[in-house]
Amino acid sequence: MSEENGSLSVRAVRGSAIRDLLAVTERPGVLSLAGGLPAPELLPTERVARAAEAALRSPSSLQYGVTTGAPALRDVVHARESTALGRDAGAIVVTHGSQQALSLLAQALLDPGDVAIVEDPGYIGALQAFDTTRARVIGVPMDNDGLRVDELRPLLEREPVRVVHTVSNFHNPGGATLAEERRRELARLADEFGFWIIEDDPYGALRFAGSTVPPVAAFSDRVLRLSSASKILAPSLRVGWMHGDAAVLGLVERLKQGADLCGSSLTQAIAAELLADTAWLDGHVAGIRAAYAERALALHAALVDAFGDRLRLTSPEGGMFLWGEFTDGTTTSAKLGEAVEAGVAYVPGSAFAVRRDLGHALRLCFTTGSPDGLREAVRRLSTVLLPMGR
Amino acid sequence: MSEENGSLSVRAVRGSAIRDLLAVTERPGVLSLAGGLPAPELLPTERVARAAEAALRSPSSLQYGVTTGAPALRDVVHARESTALGRDAGAIVVTHGSQQALSLLAQALLDPGDVAIVEDPGYIGALQAFDTTRARVIGVPMDNDGLRVDELRPLLEREPVRVVHTVSNFHNPGGATLAEERRRELARLADEFGFWIIEDDPYGALRFAGSTVPPVAAFSDRVLRLSSASKILAPSLRVGWMHGDAAVLGLVERLKQGADLCGSSLTQAIAAELLADTAWLDGHVAGIRAAYAERALALHAALVDAFGDRLRLTSPEGGMFLWGEFTDGTTTSAKLGEAVEAGVAYVPGSAFAVRRDLGHALRLCFTTGSPDGLREAVRRLSTVLLPMGR
Repeated sequence: MSEENGSLSVRAVRGSAIRDLLAVTERPGVLSLAGGLPAPELLPTERVARAAEAALRSPSSLQYGVTTGAPALRDVVHARESTALGRDAGAIVVTHGSQQALSLLAQALLDPGDVAIVEDPGYIGALQAFDTTRARVIGVPMDNDGLRVDELRPLLEREPVRVVHTVSNFHNPGGATLAEERRRELARLADEFGFWIIEDDPYGALRFAGSTVPPVAAFSDRVLRLSSASKILAPSLRVGWMHGDAAVLGLVERLKQGADLCGSSLTQAIAAELLADTAWLDGHVAGIRAAYAERALALHAALVDAFGDRLRLTSPEGGMFLWGEFTDGTTTSAKLGEAVEAGVAYVPGSAFAVRRDLGHALRLCFTTGSPDGLREAVRRLSTVLLPMGR
Repeated sequence: MSEENGSLSVRAVRGSAIRDLLAVTERPGVLSLAGGLPAPELLPTERVARAAEAALRSPSSLQYGVTTGAPALRDVVHARESTALGRDAGAIVVTHGSQQALSLLAQALLDPGDVAIVEDPGYIGALQAFDTTRARVIGVPMDNDGLRVDELRPLLEREPVRVVHTVSNFHNPGGATLAEERRRELARLADEFGFWIIEDDPYGALRFAGSTVPPVAAFSDRVLRLSSASKILAPSLRVGWMHGDAAVLGLVERLKQGADLCGSSLTQAIAAELLADTAWLDGHVAGIRAAYAERALALHAALVDAFGDRLRLTSPEGGMFLWGEFTDGTTTSAKLGEAVEAGVAYVPGSAFAVRRDLGHALRLCFTTGSPDGLREAVRRLSTVLLPMGR
């Protein structure tokens, strides 16, 4: 396809291969830890229905909207992000989920051959967005404190880097949160070397343990910061947003005109009302955090119990995923078919590999299982991933 | 900006300049014929509210959806398009408005330097989508029967052409509908020379006079056919769609993953219900057609009355726009400021020019004025665009 069209890369196909795999793992009877969806029973259907009803009293909720997003939504997002930053967040562009923010930023910032640095394991959506522009994508490893920022300087000294992408809180798939000292250092490097940081933060509000770390954007102006309503309200609103440098946001606005003209006035009106109703929102997000905490801790405890130090796990502090790396040589992709036969599924680490060998790793999503269901899933995992007779 | 980033073209800026101009023309007291929006009072707020309420009984309406679109929506669109074609329409991909279909097709089909042919005057959204891929865009003139297909062959014999884009019914901005014999010839040329036709048809259902012409896609398999719920239901659903070649649609699906993962399960559920409720839909669309017919005919009659044969107009048969070309040397862009002072606005033809000189042309939108308002708008136009003392 690359040969014939030149417009698509291998990675786009790989993303699709993962989806095909996930489709298989969703067969009845399989306890799937392979997904990446918010818990459906926590989605606020009634509150959204009330907001929809209110929005639909005006025909403007059905009309075309402004390319940068409905003013009421931009206002509430601006207030939210300014609070997170401790300063004025500047201009906001609302996007069709934060995936569109990644895609438009890739188009705005990257020419073919430009270097984009991502975490390794990498967020698939970022890899797809960067590959579409035919940028050269380089992976830098993560550890428990997130991106190994110390490994950046030699890269930066070797060649010009245009963009560094980081999922700063509760990485997908890597689980880890970028430590504050690393955020400061990353920001210093951006100022020194003149690259752009894309801080991709859909999960930051889902912290249920430990303490909040300031956004990378708090430490430099060379940060385009992305977030989303998908994990705190609902994915189907397709409301993401970005803020940062005004000139870059101007380019993004023009590219968004060509990409889809504008977002939905209806779902943007709903999102604006729900984000502005902080009394309701705080309680709602607290409910999600409490449920995810219970599930994450149940999964983590069961895994520690079953695998002990054969499996190195990220700490369960927030977000939607645990990341595990087997220390005893167990390879995860080879075992997936067997696991599905045993009634459990996960995503093998190799699906997220940029250049590291992640054949011994796996991503586990804890959002959609009950604590008992998650414990049973681990029991099934242990029948497949533990050596016989342990 | 091109210089610094290389990722944006002059045209993206031009689109933006038009929007800036339109913003000025929306000042109070100005009767604007410059817009391009559906009539707000005809937007089906109550019917959408009922569909939203029904959809929100299930959390799946708030969850992530399938990249190609909700199955129920694809089914009803498939039935609709198969009826229009007189054969099985094949696979459907739902997009975020048909602008996203244009953008994804441009990415899937065009490499930098590839030739894309558009109508001249051109649809701005298509120009923006093609320019983003750095294709070489060539304009071919239109007349009252649409694209001058007879001017294509010499182009095709001179160099490889990858894509021909046509707004087949009630062109924006050109007003005209592509005649059936030209559709057949365009299809024959696609088969002979191996280019892709993008048939962009958002207005086809808005015919209020004359007889329906079969889609270009009825005559060749090398047609990607686009349509949308924006003009018959509501723009804010952001529901467009395409059908055609399965391999191209496969590429589009993968590109859509990188562009925005998926559309809104909520607005897709609403669109599916409304498109499937044909008893309601037929009456609703008949109401839009009747209102637009009255407005278009009022505008057309007043223009003929005021300008006579100084202004050559397209026939009012459907869609949202009339296109006019002055035959007496009147230039429209120079007069726009004066027109706004006189309380009326239009879009000068030069805004849509690909390579023709359209300085004597203008686009007039009839959807949002009352017949009396449209007549008053023409009276104001005549004070500016008629020579003194006529």
